[in-house]
Amino acid sequence: MGEYSSARLDGVFNALGDPTRRAILARLSDRQARVTELAGDFPISLNSVSKHIRMLERAGLVRRSIQGREHLLSLNAAPLAEAQAWIDRYRVFWEDRLAKLDIYVTSRKGKRK
Amino acid sequence: MGEYSSARLDGVFNALGDPTRRAILARLSDRQARVTELAGDFPISLNSVSKHIRMLERAGLVRRSIQGREHLLSLNAAPLAEAQAWIDRYRVFWEDRLAKLDIYVTSRKGKRK
Repeated sequence: MGEYSSARLDGVFNALGDPTRRAILARLSDRQARVTELAGDFPISLNSVSKHIRMLERAGLVRRSIQGREHLLSLNAAPLAEAQAWIDRYRVFWEDRLAKLDIYVTSRKGKRK
Repeated sequence: MGEYSSARLDGVFNALGDPTRRAILARLSDRQARVTELAGDFPISLNSVSKHIRMLERAGLVRRSIQGREHLLSLNAAPLAEAQAWIDRYRVFWEDRLAKLDIYVTSRKGKRK
């Protein structure tokens, strides 16, 4: 399995597999935020938001900087580059499918004339 | 959260969050395979491989066609396009970081002369 056994890639993909965590990343891409601020944006408990944040931190997608009593969270998009590169190897397969569909639709249109 | 609540996207990212499942997709991108064939490639039980395949099927990444007694599995890369598009919105953030690092390295090199 070699190159596919990347614990970092596991962490990133699993972190992205939840709508709240994706929404937290989207929120932080706008600007950094305190945990309590972020929690106010979601209809779930502070405890649940904290768990999602910790999972994002473990995946390296969120950074926490402690300034006095404030915990500031910011986006770290770097680990997404590897995830993007992994998926990108399959681009030829979905583009090929779309191209075939396009040829099929075009040929059907031709027949209808 | 709106646009981020995509059950399909959850399924795709969670399916990708495991090295065996990523390796199964890589294997199927080469050519279609029977379940038993595929199981022979991995040092885990047939039962475990079957579970991984079912998760990939639920995510729409693997298709099963039954021909007589044979279950043939093939790759369906289409759902990866949406995952790729989601990640791609963050490209500006990791490229920006790399650009800043590049400027920093270049300026250090300049100072060393």
